[in-house]
Amino acid sequence: LCCLWGGESMPDPKHREALMEMEASMQTGGQLVMSDKEKVLNARFLQMKQAEVMRPDFPPAMHFFKARELIKESPLFSLLRKAPKGAALHVHDLSMTAVEWLVKNVTYRPDLYMCSSDTQSLRFIFCSQIPQPLARCSPWVLLEKLRNATVNVTELDDRIMRSMTVFTDQDPETLYPTQDVVWERFEEAFMALRGLVNFAPVFRDYYYQGLREFYADNVMYLELRAVLPEVYELDGSTHDITWSLKTYQEVTRSFTADHPGFFGARVIFSFHRHVNSTVMARVVEEAMKLKRDFPDFVAGFDLMGREDQGRPLWYFRHELSMPSDRGLLLPFYFHAGETNLEGSDVDQNLLDALLFNTSRIGHGFALLRHPVAKELSRKRGVAVEICPISNQVTKLVDDLRNHPGAVLMAEDHPLVISSDDPAMFGSSGLSYDFYEALVGFGGLRSNLRTLKSLAINSIRYSSLPAAQQEKALAMWQKQWDKFISENT
Amino acid sequence: LCCLWGGESMPDPKHREALMEMEASMQTGGQLVMSDKEKVLNARFLQMKQAEVMRPDFPPAMHFFKARELIKESPLFSLLRKAPKGAALHVHDLSMTAVEWLVKNVTYRPDLYMCSSDTQSLRFIFCSQIPQPLARCSPWVLLEKLRNATVNVTELDDRIMRSMTVFTDQDPETLYPTQDVVWERFEEAFMALRGLVNFAPVFRDYYYQGLREFYADNVMYLELRAVLPEVYELDGSTHDITWSLKTYQEVTRSFTADHPGFFGARVIFSFHRHVNSTVMARVVEEAMKLKRDFPDFVAGFDLMGREDQGRPLWYFRHELSMPSDRGLLLPFYFHAGETNLEGSDVDQNLLDALLFNTSRIGHGFALLRHPVAKELSRKRGVAVEICPISNQVTKLVDDLRNHPGAVLMAEDHPLVISSDDPAMFGSSGLSYDFYEALVGFGGLRSNLRTLKSLAINSIRYSSLPAAQQEKALAMWQKQWDKFISENT
Ligand SMILES: [Zn+2]
Ligand SMILES: [Zn+2]
Repeated sequence: LCCLWGGESMPDPKHREALMEMEASMQTGGQLVMSDKEKVLNARFLQMKQAEVMRPDFPPAMHFFKARELIKESPLFSLLRKAPKGAALHVHDLSMTAVEWLVKNVTYRPDLYMCSSDTQSLRFIFCSQIPQPLARCSPWVLLEKLRNATVNVTELDDRIMRSMTVFTDQDPETLYPTQDVVWERFEEAFMALRGLVNFAPVFRDYYYQGLREFYADNVMYLELRAVLPEVYELDGSTHDITWSLKTYQEVTRSFTADHPGFFGARVIFSFHRHVNSTVMARVVEEAMKLKRDFPDFVAGFDLMGREDQGRPLWYFRHELSMPSDRGLLLPFYFHAGETNLEGSDVDQNLLDALLFNTSRIGHGFALLRHPVAKELSRKRGVAVEICPISNQVTKLVDDLRNHPGAVLMAEDHPLVISSDDPAMFGSSGLSYDFYEALVGFGGLRSNLRTLKSLAINSIRYSSLPAAQQEKALAMWQKQWDKFISENT
Repeated sequence: LCCLWGGESMPDPKHREALMEMEASMQTGGQLVMSDKEKVLNARFLQMKQAEVMRPDFPPAMHFFKARELIKESPLFSLLRKAPKGAALHVHDLSMTAVEWLVKNVTYRPDLYMCSSDTQSLRFIFCSQIPQPLARCSPWVLLEKLRNATVNVTELDDRIMRSMTVFTDQDPETLYPTQDVVWERFEEAFMALRGLVNFAPVFRDYYYQGLREFYADNVMYLELRAVLPEVYELDGSTHDITWSLKTYQEVTRSFTADHPGFFGARVIFSFHRHVNSTVMARVVEEAMKLKRDFPDFVAGFDLMGREDQGRPLWYFRHELSMPSDRGLLLPFYFHAGETNLEGSDVDQNLLDALLFNTSRIGHGFALLRHPVAKELSRKRGVAVEICPISNQVTKLVDDLRNHPGAVLMAEDHPLVISSDDPAMFGSSGLSYDFYEALVGFGGLRSNLRTLKSLAINSIRYSSLPAAQQEKALAMWQKQWDKFISENT
């Protein structure tokens, strides 16, 4: 570095140029060589980005709920939608599918009961007869009956829609003044969703529809954080979690068979961190069993739920050591560092996730403040799953230019971009998050190579074994070439 | 790093401990060894910090205008006020002294005329007779007369006070929705201040009062960004900028003589970047002359004003090369990277400042996104002057936990904490910015060693020659020992 610099009279413009190029080459995708066709598209891409940056209302500096329409209408977003983005590696099953589909399709099915909790949130259940009343809820009503008796059905449907998402048309800063408020809203929305989605016929359709939406967004492969609930039938009987997993596997197979260019999906079994050690021991046991029985479909295990309020990883150190103690393989994909409580127990999760040999890091928002963890992640190629919109909605960061992903991308840190809970945020697929990353993190510097590199990263850092990765990459390359051809 | 990690069964708690200690030792102050007394105070210090972090309204996450009273009333702030903080290396002369003093003292002096611009901002001038009318302003009125005719003088004084600061009791986000609006307000406030402060007798008193305020905040030395205006007399005659510089030197000498434990001050001649090359050539010429004539009092030269709208450094490359072309010494202290426009011309200022061999970097807000510039700054010990409150007020960052200073402090990057324009922000001295840095950047991890290290940095990265630094450090050490003794 230093030998490039004279420091005596006017800096040599060539040396300056060289340093600028060095910096450009250090960013994500900075080493890729573009074909002539890619260069043509890149020029258009940079023009489109310039147009975004020149807007008086710069979308990445705004709350996504306000920015969504601006992004949606931008030519850059249309291009990003069309781009083959590879894999979505951090998406939760219960929030992968647009809420609109749930309202328009699922809530119009027969035998659906609804009630309202005393927190004004909705609850649903499919049942062949009137269900047992729920504590702290209004009596159940058959939704079909209610709709027949309602004058303004649109208003009712809007209310149902709102109950299943955090997205709002109101001012998000006013509605969600603190992290606590937004997380509460989250939990309520999941409660509303659960009764709908965990009904066996819907469970299958919901997942299929989710795959369809990601496929439409040009995503070819998913690793789904799945809670694997006990899915119920109309008579109240329930299936075990193996049934849920098998259903996911079957639907994945049939969807993949029917959709050319789709590579498939795998499941990361994800359990809530708000439990005690006894429960956790049982859950890890279960996870090992699932990994053994479905070695090619189960990618691994994760703990989820708000880190600040849950147990830190170290609390479960004995339970999380069970697989290695027994010489069994259970890869971890831990959420860690989704916090701005620096120096707390929770803040320790990042280092602990790495000590437990995590395969990737979910969020890693606090990574920059942990130089040792950062270095470990880099050296060992443990990719950070960056979810820009999610971190903004949960109020970790306001202006996305200040998101740590901007720094990690400037340094080509191992990372992928993902969407966490797209339906919750009124987003879908990966394109909105790609927009935020490319426009917000990258400023004017990110380019088509950055986009390409992010897509390649998503396959390289997936749980797929090497041979499968090569197959997926070859498939992706074809889509990429087509994308370049069709847009130049 | 990696050899500390086994990765097979449960991570060894001792290895984990070692990694945590390694990370703690990497932060600013992490290498300092505490005396027994310091350890006692550190325990109190950490307790006080814990109390701040546990607040429902966490001050560093709020806008400073709302947080100020919370900070002021905290026991931690009282302790920080008392701590000898060393030097203030990034403070602008026209905003070093509380506006309250200007209103209560200066505006009650005779011969002061006031008018109101068509932007509702105020203008002032001292004059022995009624001054020439100003364009786009109301006619001049003698303030003394106006006060005599006013029923509610408090209200009038409040209006005068508000015109000279960006601080507000209203909701700052509503009042200043964009960077443009807040920068305009800045310029207006400076226009109001100028007429008051550039009057010869006030010029002297204002600076003396400013030193008094920093001294009261336990700051022992200042490097002042000074515009060196043409100061005027009652009859309208003006002095040249050498006169302003000499006045600063004389006042510094007399203040230092009268205040034990105060070390002194130096000036960084600072000129507005909104000029053309011809003007810049003349200014650099002037700066070289001042440095030659006052070698011990003039530290160097800087360009100021909003980077996003001004000329980038590279635009002035020929003018800025004049000193080295002639073999003359003119150290630079450039504002650079006070922007979130990544990839723009302005964003290039950081690297260019380093190529022009800048002695320190003012703000460097964008440094993390420039790995080459960051590495150069670190290797060559070019300290970043971090001004947390300033960056928040100019809307570069909202929640100060996301300020890049948090990352730089985690890595012990060469840096100092300063207050930029304290009077503009309703702040004073350095303590408020130290609070934001220690509580906001450091989370629960920063400690008394961090504070001590920041104070030592401020002397080590000053423009003082080595022998003077040793003298200042010895003086500071005495104050530090006293501080420790008196607070344990
Ligand atoms: Zn997640
Ligand atoms: Zn400044």
